[in-house]
Amino acid sequence: MPRFAYVNGRYVAHREGRVHIEDRGYQFADGVYEVVPVFDGKLVDEEPHLDRLDYSLGELKIAQPCARPALRFICRELVRRNCLRRGILYMQVTRGVASRDHKFPATVKSALVVTTKNYGGPTPRMIEEGARVITIPDIRWARCDIKSISLLPNVLGKQQAVERGAFEAWLIDRNGNVTEGTSTNAWIVTSDKRVITRQLGNAILAGVTRASLRKLMADDGYKLEERPFTLAEAKSAAEAFLTSSTSLVLPITQIDDDRIGGGKPGPMTRKLREAMLAYVAK
Amino acid sequence: MPRFAYVNGRYVAHREGRVHIEDRGYQFADGVYEVVPVFDGKLVDEEPHLDRLDYSLGELKIAQPCARPALRFICRELVRRNCLRRGILYMQVTRGVASRDHKFPATVKSALVVTTKNYGGPTPRMIEEGARVITIPDIRWARCDIKSISLLPNVLGKQQAVERGAFEAWLIDRNGNVTEGTSTNAWIVTSDKRVITRQLGNAILAGVTRASLRKLMADDGYKLEERPFTLAEAKSAAEAFLTSSTSLVLPITQIDDDRIGGGKPGPMTRKLREAMLAYVAK
Repeated sequence: MPRFAYVNGRYVAHREGRVHIEDRGYQFADGVYEVVPVFDGKLVDEEPHLDRLDYSLGELKIAQPCARPALRFICRELVRRNCLRRGILYMQVTRGVASRDHKFPATVKSALVVTTKNYGGPTPRMIEEGARVITIPDIRWARCDIKSISLLPNVLGKQQAVERGAFEAWLIDRNGNVTEGTSTNAWIVTSDKRVITRQLGNAILAGVTRASLRKLMADDGYKLEERPFTLAEAKSAAEAFLTSSTSLVLPITQIDDDRIGGGKPGPMTRKLREAMLAYVAK
Repeated sequence: MPRFAYVNGRYVAHREGRVHIEDRGYQFADGVYEVVPVFDGKLVDEEPHLDRLDYSLGELKIAQPCARPALRFICRELVRRNCLRRGILYMQVTRGVASRDHKFPATVKSALVVTTKNYGGPTPRMIEEGARVITIPDIRWARCDIKSISLLPNVLGKQQAVERGAFEAWLIDRNGNVTEGTSTNAWIVTSDKRVITRQLGNAILAGVTRASLRKLMADDGYKLEERPFTLAEAKSAAEAFLTSSTSLVLPITQIDDDRIGGGKPGPMTRKLREAMLAYVAK
């Protein structure tokens, strides 16, 4: 249980962290967030996360809560105060507090909340055996490139996965293609060792781990194709995996009722996970 | 400015109303709401609003925050304490406070916030001249029948309307049909006096004012068609109007750059507005 949270200018006891009932994040989901992994007390990919936060804020025309050096300081200071070695930092920016009205308020100060959590990553067993995903229709809105807190469909999707004994739900668009998971990006590997993941666009979030892995793959000469892939293609793939800030690279060994790669994590996935682990440990 | 808000079991000063930073409404938009009009100190259509709240909660499997008699008491008591004669009551229920994780928490108590606001309805000028609406693509998720607080697309749509000098934005689905406004239901009247509004389903909210007006129309022998209508049909309609708990029946005299009914509120719309005013005054 973390000791401190940062809430609108102050470090407070986590259990005392409160926002006003008319914060637009609470009434309209009018805000954005980031989850940054922490390894050995250090924020991994701090700048790409802050860049993406700026992108999300810009798309929604929400003012930045403070200048980047100040935000960077707050994040690092909270990690320090909570003595966090391995876990995640969560930051959320909303449009601020205003009398409830859909349109943007004339003058308002963005709200900023930052918390941390101890988290060791997926269990050894899950890494060894691979995760199971189910597939469900992608019923989200048309701007999934914005990392907004408007996450209700993601919540419902994850819950369906859990109820069916799975770790994640892959979302299928109206053309039968996989977009991404409810909180992770989706990847497959073909039998001739091409790695495939959906191209960036409004249908998926530009994952920071996705981008880092992409760079590692380019450096190591992997063949990457960024394009839509169908559920059928995924089910007949040699390997499958997901990426996220909390799971890094996690093998998938079952999609719905179909085993992938004989039901065992594949060699490419293992190598990519090792490469990501080395990257975050740097 | 209202004096009191009801927040999780207590009547508190409105400006002191606070919820925890890990309320799932704040982090996931994992909650629902209702807006109930108040006329002459009385809640209008109280039971249909509470019925719809139950529906939304049920669809999301969020537990009711309290039994209906208790909720009814809280709403009426807040109206009384705030000496509200004419305005709106807002109530919001979220899944409650839990350490951030997409899936439903195992044990959690639903959070309940209720506020009121003085509001006199649309200005006399707007009623006299009619409102302008713009049209934009409907980019929302696939479950608009749930009155969730996941309202970011609605916020962005309303803001676009305001920036273009309009009162509301009508949302156009991928088939070119009008679904509804960002916070209102959409209606048109044909030259042969048929009234048309979108049928209920996942694409629109089941408006309480919509239902009340529907009943008034049936009692008075109006011809109502519940079906999709295209933007072209709307632009060539004899009359157009919108309904909501805050606006009741509001004439629309311009859609994008096209005038409707010669740019003046039509006779049917005026009659229906009068009927609604008589209904809420009962």
